[in-house]
Amino acid sequence: MVNPFTHFDDTGASRMVDVGDKMETARSATASALVRMKSETATLIRTKALSKGDVLEVARLAGIMGAKKTSDLIPLCHPLPIHGVEIQFEFTDDRTLRILASVKVTGKTGVEMEALTAVSIAALTVYDMAKAIDREMTIEKIRLEEKLGGKSGHFQAGEDRERTTG
Amino acid sequence: MVNPFTHFDDTGASRMVDVGDKMETARSATASALVRMKSETATLIRTKALSKGDVLEVARLAGIMGAKKTSDLIPLCHPLPIHGVEIQFEFTDDRTLRILASVKVTGKTGVEMEALTAVSIAALTVYDMAKAIDREMTIEKIRLEEKLGGKSGHFQAGEDRERTTG
Amino acid sequence: MVNPFTHFDDTGASRMVDVGDKMETARSATASALVRMKSETATLIRTKALSKGDVLEVARLAGIMGAKKTSDLIPLCHPLPIHGVEIQFEFTDDRTLRILASVKVTGKTGVEMEALTAVSIAALTVYDMAKAIDREMTIEKIRLEEKLGGKSGHFQAGEDRERTTG
Amino acid sequence: MVNPFTHFDDTGASRMVDVGDKMETARSATASALVRMKSETATLIRTKALSKGDVLEVARLAGIMGAKKTSDLIPLCHPLPIHGVEIQFEFTDDRTLRILASVKVTGKTGVEMEALTAVSIAALTVYDMAKAIDREMTIEKIRLEEKLGGKSGHFQAGEDRERTTG
Amino acid sequence: MVNPFTHFDDTGASRMVDVGDKMETARSATASALVRMKSETATLIRTKALSKGDVLEVARLAGIMGAKKTSDLIPLCHPLPIHGVEIQFEFTDDRTLRILASVKVTGKTGVEMEALTAVSIAALTVYDMAKAIDREMTIEKIRLEEKLGGKSGHFQAGEDRERTTG
Amino acid sequence: MVNPFTHFDDTGASRMVDVGDKMETARSATASALVRMKSETATLIRTKALSKGDVLEVARLAGIMGAKKTSDLIPLCHPLPIHGVEIQFEFTDDRTLRILASVKVTGKTGVEMEALTAVSIAALTVYDMAKAIDREMTIEKIRLEEKLGGKSGHFQAGEDRERTTG
Repeated sequence: MVNPFTHFDDTGASRMVDVGDKMETARSATASALVRMKSETATLIRTKALSKGDVLEVARLAGIMGAKKTSDLIPLCHPLPIHGVEIQFEFTDDRTLRILASVKVTGKTGVEMEALTAVSIAALTVYDMAKAIDREMTIEKIRLEEKLGGKSGHFQAGEDRERTTG
Repeated sequence: MVNPFTHFDDTGASRMVDVGDKMETARSATASALVRMKSETATLIRTKALSKGDVLEVARLAGIMGAKKTSDLIPLCHPLPIHGVEIQFEFTDDRTLRILASVKVTGKTGVEMEALTAVSIAALTVYDMAKAIDREMTIEKIRLEEKLGGKSGHFQAGEDRERTTG
Repeated sequence: MVNPFTHFDDTGASRMVDVGDKMETARSATASALVRMKSETATLIRTKALSKGDVLEVARLAGIMGAKKTSDLIPLCHPLPIHGVEIQFEFTDDRTLRILASVKVTGKTGVEMEALTAVSIAALTVYDMAKAIDREMTIEKIRLEEKLGGKSGHFQAGEDRERTTG
Repeated sequence: MVNPFTHFDDTGASRMVDVGDKMETARSATASALVRMKSETATLIRTKALSKGDVLEVARLAGIMGAKKTSDLIPLCHPLPIHGVEIQFEFTDDRTLRILASVKVTGKTGVEMEALTAVSIAALTVYDMAKAIDREMTIEKIRLEEKLGGKSGHFQAGEDRERTTG
Repeated sequence: MVNPFTHFDDTGASRMVDVGDKMETARSATASALVRMKSETATLIRTKALSKGDVLEVARLAGIMGAKKTSDLIPLCHPLPIHGVEIQFEFTDDRTLRILASVKVTGKTGVEMEALTAVSIAALTVYDMAKAIDREMTIEKIRLEEKLGGKSGHFQAGEDRERTTG
Repeated sequence: MVNPFTHFDDTGASRMVDVGDKMETARSATASALVRMKSETATLIRTKALSKGDVLEVARLAGIMGAKKTSDLIPLCHPLPIHGVEIQFEFTDDRTLRILASVKVTGKTGVEMEALTAVSIAALTVYDMAKAIDREMTIEKIRLEEKLGGKSGHFQAGEDRERTTG
């Protein structure tokens, strides 16, 4: 049987796969996460964001800095001098915050893990900032939304999956 | 109005709250996360785990090391010399991996963020290890399960929440 | 002659001084720095701070996170699980931003270096955020303002020094 | 009005600017800082430097290692695999140490922040090494001296500024 | 006399040598280390490795992650976004574990230090995992085995050295 | 059979052992390593150390800073705010450098790994500094020399071992 996990060699040993022969191409990845909270918490975060003490700005910076630490956090991830990170927030209903991170690089490997790490750390930071008032927040549906560049080409998260994992 | 976010002062400035006057007590926190994947992926992970190339062991180590980096990742989190971390994995159905992390410390602040960071990094590592065969995995329901010690006392995630956020 | 530098032993070898016999006491330190800029830059930072895109909030978080990295940056500094960090900003005239950081710990060594590192990193972040519009900003008068706790007792920066180093 | 801060998008959200389309060119930056101290402290540092226990060599290494951590310290700074760092020290009078750091890279963004971080961490290390004998040292005039490469071309700190900020 | 240490300039100041003019070429390095232990310890590690609780897999991940931290650990080492790391283990007799790490990059400097750091951290991790049962383990013969690419060309550890340092 | 590896639980899962119930006691550990080199290299290092460009001082600082990073490098090691580190160098013959590191803490776990990490990183730094003139250096006999404090009491490396592993 063919070894399905590229991060293991044929004996099952973990490794950082040699990407020396891969092409340097422009690559990008977008990931998302949801933070579910009480509507009172959502209201406070939104209100604060309009005046002083912006939970989302703290989370955004944590997410950007988290993206830069990806290869330090994920054991077999390649270090990559990433070229850009943007993080957006949107309340999709009165108690759901959606976080979207988009990461770019010109390199030999993709930046999916950087984008996923960015939304995860941003979501954890929202939890930390608001946990004194809402310990029951949950982080949901961390997933890859889109990926461009590299041999595997374009990936777009399907509606199907949305339904299946809902 | 009373400032609801302890991480901001009254002018809205972020801060690392002074915990100097808090008691040093034994504290623990347990958090969980789910990784949803194709049943083929789950089968491969489970099979590998029984022979060689253990995805879950890599994820476990990443989660433990991630717990140690919490205060480096979450901007206003206090650095804490944690006393113990354990991470468990369980397949709750043919395509759902449940990750449970439990962290302990004797200190002035709780370790919720350490436990939540541990499950998040472990889940991201599972994604990284298996992404070549299943790019549509999602990470779900990262939440605090239980918290012991400190002034706020015992917290146990309720069944209600489960239903509400399901 | 008595060795004046505690960070060197009698042969001149650098060392992290053993503080095992020192008392654990409540300690705090406050440091300050000035960032000098064009008045147009100061106006933009102040205006932005009142609407969106808050340079100072980014600098504040960088300073707090920097304080946590002090022992990683300063070779012979002891690692300390600090208890609290606060950073304040004030424009003292139309082109001078004053940064004040205050750090607390209960421990065997003081937190001067943490406070000084916090204001330095915050000031560097202001430079980074505004450098595209004002490359000639300078960072001035990074100094210890006050120090409490520990054997050396209370230190308060004197007016004399102000005059001498002005 | 045009957004003056490139680190914010038009809504005021912070971001790591995408530099993917910028040219890879040879870039360098030089920054400087002054450490003001009592003349007795300066004498001790200079004397030690000639025999054993070299404060400046410790500061030099801290500055070089600090330059490598720049993107970890400054939230919106791009990670850059820098090509070279040199740090020089000079006593400009009997109580003033001048620190000069020069950083080189071939990359898509400049290395001003790396050079400024290098002199800042070196200066903080001098403070740490000598603080037991001179708590009133100050760090002054951290500034960019020169910058080469990239679209914005050659920057050289002017005499004018010297006078204005003196 | 010519300065023999490239990491010092002619005045004896340490520096990160400017490699901006060096060619970007494919480079690789292999290093090795031995861990000497009681034969009972070796038996336990080998047995465990065949069932559950794999000391060597933990050491392998630590070595790979350690390789990524090389420029953070070795003061004058250049940061390098490495392309691949593999670590192998072999018991050469009933109480000697041999660790072999191979690192690859396309870059301006070699990866000897990354390979040497990888085997060192892997060996230290074996010690940590087994120290409760065998505190007298030693780490031996950490050395560069082979180096390819760059101006200095091919290096292969000689048999001579083996004999001399045995 | 009793589980011999405390870093694994009974199912073979790795963990950071909970040390919450252990006593806080004064603990210290001393470790050593040898660096074997050509006698010309040893002469250059010794000569330089007496004038300018001190290889050993760079290695010393790297070792001290490495000790502070131990829990970041060794996956299941507890983070410890260590109280003191000293590193000594001695040439035991015309081509052998002996490195000795001694680490102290008041805490719930020992500091063997900190002392062993300190000598390892110091030795790797000597290699890095001198590799351009002597690529065949080897690092030998990294071992624990002595350990004080904690439940396991006093450990002193025996002469026996010396003979056996020689």
